[in-house]
Amino acid sequence: MGNVSFQSVNIEDGFWKEQQKVNRETTVWAIYDRFKESGRFDALRCGWQEGMPNKPHIFWDSDVAKWLEGASYLMQKQPDARMEAIADNIADTVEAHQREDGYFNSYFLTMSPDEIFTHRMDHELYCAGHFVEAAIAYYHATGKRKLLDCMERYIALIDRVFRIEHSAAFDTPGHEEIEMALAKLYEETKNENYLKLLRFFVDHRGRSKKDSSAPFSEYHTQSHLPAVEQHTAEGHAVRALYWCCGIQDLAALEDDADLKETCLAIFDDIVTKKMYITGGVGSTYAGEAFTFPYDLPDDRAYSETCAGIALAMFCRRLWSMYKDGKYADIAEQAIYNTVLSGISLSGDEFFYENPLAVDVRQRKFYEKRPSFEQLRWPIIRRVKLFECSCCPPNLMRLIGAIGDYAYSVEGDTIYTHLYMDNTADIPVAGKTFRITQKTKYPLAGHICLTVGTEGSCKLALRIPAWCQNPEVKVNGEKIHGEICNGYFMIEKMWAEGDCIELILPMIVRVVEAAPECRDYCGKIAVCRGPMVYCVESEDCDGQTVVRDVRIHTDAPFTVKEEMICGRELPVIYAEGEVRRGTGNLYQNVPFERMPVSVRMIPYFTWANRGEDDMYVWLLG
Amino acid sequence: MGNVSFQSVNIEDGFWKEQQKVNRETTVWAIYDRFKESGRFDALRCGWQEGMPNKPHIFWDSDVAKWLEGASYLMQKQPDARMEAIADNIADTVEAHQREDGYFNSYFLTMSPDEIFTHRMDHELYCAGHFVEAAIAYYHATGKRKLLDCMERYIALIDRVFRIEHSAAFDTPGHEEIEMALAKLYEETKNENYLKLLRFFVDHRGRSKKDSSAPFSEYHTQSHLPAVEQHTAEGHAVRALYWCCGIQDLAALEDDADLKETCLAIFDDIVTKKMYITGGVGSTYAGEAFTFPYDLPDDRAYSETCAGIALAMFCRRLWSMYKDGKYADIAEQAIYNTVLSGISLSGDEFFYENPLAVDVRQRKFYEKRPSFEQLRWPIIRRVKLFECSCCPPNLMRLIGAIGDYAYSVEGDTIYTHLYMDNTADIPVAGKTFRITQKTKYPLAGHICLTVGTEGSCKLALRIPAWCQNPEVKVNGEKIHGEICNGYFMIEKMWAEGDCIELILPMIVRVVEAAPECRDYCGKIAVCRGPMVYCVESEDCDGQTVVRDVRIHTDAPFTVKEEMICGRELPVIYAEGEVRRGTGNLYQNVPFERMPVSVRMIPYFTWANRGEDDMYVWLLG
Repeated sequence: MGNVSFQSVNIEDGFWKEQQKVNRETTVWAIYDRFKESGRFDALRCGWQEGMPNKPHIFWDSDVAKWLEGASYLMQKQPDARMEAIADNIADTVEAHQREDGYFNSYFLTMSPDEIFTHRMDHELYCAGHFVEAAIAYYHATGKRKLLDCMERYIALIDRVFRIEHSAAFDTPGHEEIEMALAKLYEETKNENYLKLLRFFVDHRGRSKKDSSAPFSEYHTQSHLPAVEQHTAEGHAVRALYWCCGIQDLAALEDDADLKETCLAIFDDIVTKKMYITGGVGSTYAGEAFTFPYDLPDDRAYSETCAGIALAMFCRRLWSMYKDGKYADIAEQAIYNTVLSGISLSGDEFFYENPLAVDVRQRKFYEKRPSFEQLRWPIIRRVKLFECSCCPPNLMRLIGAIGDYAYSVEGDTIYTHLYMDNTADIPVAGKTFRITQKTKYPLAGHICLTVGTEGSCKLALRIPAWCQNPEVKVNGEKIHGEICNGYFMIEKMWAEGDCIELILPMIVRVVEAAPECRDYCGKIAVCRGPMVYCVESEDCDGQTVVRDVRIHTDAPFTVKEEMICGRELPVIYAEGEVRRGTGNLYQNVPFERMPVSVRMIPYFTWANRGEDDMYVWLLG
Repeated sequence: MGNVSFQSVNIEDGFWKEQQKVNRETTVWAIYDRFKESGRFDALRCGWQEGMPNKPHIFWDSDVAKWLEGASYLMQKQPDARMEAIADNIADTVEAHQREDGYFNSYFLTMSPDEIFTHRMDHELYCAGHFVEAAIAYYHATGKRKLLDCMERYIALIDRVFRIEHSAAFDTPGHEEIEMALAKLYEETKNENYLKLLRFFVDHRGRSKKDSSAPFSEYHTQSHLPAVEQHTAEGHAVRALYWCCGIQDLAALEDDADLKETCLAIFDDIVTKKMYITGGVGSTYAGEAFTFPYDLPDDRAYSETCAGIALAMFCRRLWSMYKDGKYADIAEQAIYNTVLSGISLSGDEFFYENPLAVDVRQRKFYEKRPSFEQLRWPIIRRVKLFECSCCPPNLMRLIGAIGDYAYSVEGDTIYTHLYMDNTADIPVAGKTFRITQKTKYPLAGHICLTVGTEGSCKLALRIPAWCQNPEVKVNGEKIHGEICNGYFMIEKMWAEGDCIELILPMIVRVVEAAPECRDYCGKIAVCRGPMVYCVESEDCDGQTVVRDVRIHTDAPFTVKEEMICGRELPVIYAEGEVRRGTGNLYQNVPFERMPVSVRMIPYFTWANRGEDDMYVWLLG
């Protein structure tokens, strides 16, 4: 029951096939090389000494772990000897340097072994959590338990020190992650201690007298209140959403009504008040945080790639419990916009922040004036590595395991969530049901599902909220069914070869933001399917003042398949107008307006053709 | 020839009478009290020691000097025994503590006497310049030369150390001011050394090998290039404009064509690319600086009060050389908007920064989250004192000497610039010509000038660029004359009692910003006469989302005289619409629009009724 793992979902064509090809051929190695040359892998050997290059960093174990987790997802689908050798080496290294008592954190073992479990804000348990997830993935991919055994020993130590002896200097991690790792480890092992430790961490956050979030406020780590008293998304966005994943896992495992309430309230707060149209969250770089309702500045948007991934992870947990299409709607809003914006089409360059507006002159100006260092703006060109390089391996593991987002099962019903070209073997009602989807989704709205297994079961096909007038045909005949919470329900005794066609018309949509969003008053965004579009200056008819483009929202939009850096993607042509400057800064008579034709590209493909002005929100 | 001093201009009624009353009765004493209790006056005695309260600050001499200058302007118009006693005491104190060699800077004498003339960025010569200006004003007001003598001795030292011996650790001051003080001192004394020192400072800036602007870039202090190679406004806005005043003074005194070019080019750069509609300059708090063309964010606007004053001072210098109404247009744009925004209607509270948009929720949020300290926003409530409190006494001296902005003379022509109710005795063509203006300007556009002296002279009446269809009547009869560079020319043999009526229709204007101003695309500002209007939330029909108000620019505007905190001022009623929220953050169908009536108040009166959202630029 619940979500269907990507292990059962094979992607053989379509949009995600292309993404996964780049992931396997380029991304995994690009990240490996950058991590290798920056010393992240070597740091595991705990041999760094003053004077040597590549001083270890508190995040680095998590970078390696996420790379290993992502690589394991690739290996689960297709063995790779070089990848496996690297993975084995990681496992061997961890085992070799793990302390007698089970402790393993390469940073603390190297830099300050006397200070373990004393620095709440130094990502110790966050790294542990990522290593647990990596160990499980590596085990599933290779059957090798070594790293998982190491991690079980490490978690046993953490359990003793934190939950049983209370001998750590803090009670809950300053950066959540271990919570969902513990849920996963419990699912894997059924060892009740992991569940108890998860419960301990969840219950103590916001209640512990030992915990401090200094130099940040307690909001930063969601420690301002106990979980059950929280109803709004606060603080560091990735922390907040990893924490939501962890407490939703616990709520599901223990059927905890109060925690469920918290998760639902926070989700609601995010999607009705604190989320960019791209599914990005965290409006500000200051604390990488959620701010206040409707505060969604486009040019200073933080909208971290990892936060978008975390929102999708949270949605997946919610849809598995609550059969409501809105969770998949939000997941794909995040994935097809903010998340994929985080990686170049070439697969080897990354954004950490994903702003919705760029003024190149502004960035150039601030780059060349040292006195302007105080003003922080998102970068406008993807880079190969960040000092804090959490996003690249997070993208790698998300893309490798994207099949996770396709299906869930409840009773005798198979739910489809994110449509993607795939063949899946889904355990339902005591048998394994094969479904094949052929589709170009999200580039087009036509999905063909073929049943590969005879038998009775219900199908619940998600109808995205953006879609008007969906059509469902079974074996060529249009059927009328109930749409229940965003899912079109079909119950049938299926024969092998039965074909369900789902047609989700992808009309170009003109979207307005709530009046309270001060940054978007008077503006519109153009969307098609789950994808948000943007304008880059070079596609704007030679007009450089993209911000001044007013879209004629009542004129027809034209969609064409065109190449963007080697990918065939639907672009949108819109008609609009811009004003002609006169040399006056201010003028009592309106500036003359001229027609302009604008080419819009999917937001996630921005900044692939060099630095350029870019805007999602345009005058409408 | 040239500008007519406020000493010859008596303001007996109208807008400025009210401002000057508040200045004399409230502002001068409010600032005195704050400066007194914060130790600024006592610091002059150079007696501070570690452990005592009120540690001296490098700016403080300039604060005291500007207070003295402003108080002297008041005393010139109306003696005041208490004020004079304080002024005398300042002079006595400076004399008592001035070093044998002429040096006087209370900060360096107290804190680090061994380091004089070694810290370019520590405002030493800036303070000296302000004291020179104060000494001249005090001398004019009281006939007492003591302080002026002190300052002449000090300048003689500076001249020797900097110009003659080159023995200072730097060549030019890190904050300009002394340049215009030297020009004024030269005009007062005709001592050529002052002119030579001014020339030295002007020529060495941007050329000196000793000068550094660290930790800022060389742009910050206009030291990135020699003056004659500069054509754009760069760096710290107050520095830049004080410097422009100084080089324009030198250009005028020495008829220096290259420096004139520089001043004209910088003025042009400012007014066509870098000035807020309020006449504010300096877009960013980072370095309090000019940024790049068309970068004029409204909510983060720095737009320092002092920079607005400095722009007006620069304009006055320019109109005295170039008979063009655009300089007075810009001066009044700055004075009636940014500058007066810097002081509360009550006269005792001040803004340093003058943003054009405020979102109260944003400020409240950032106040309560320590991790957000990195994000700097302008304050939204005027305060009684700043740590760096340059603006309050600058306002005081500007308001006290506002008559400076009324007239200039060239040959046999009297130019009128800023209209204000006044009686002036103007030396022209060998005699003193009396002119009386009766007007409510800038609140209304009707100006009645009465000639009080028989004789022949030309009158050049400025027709503001915002004005369409001006009318001029002489003794009741409409006359048609030439408008030459923004001045309506009348030549006549005047009889005593001749009456010139100037009617400048104050139509409500809808102003657009250039397409390149990304922050104002799709927006309009509402202006009347020289005043820019704004909307505060409380005047917005109970609608809280002021940013979403769309003004119906083709519907009629209604102007009414209404009370704002005890001042009768013209307010504007506009019709518009706002959208009704639905609870959705994003929506594929337009939000419903509802009519709204909006009351707009002069921008300079904002934030006098408590903290509130405020916007100048609205959807149009």
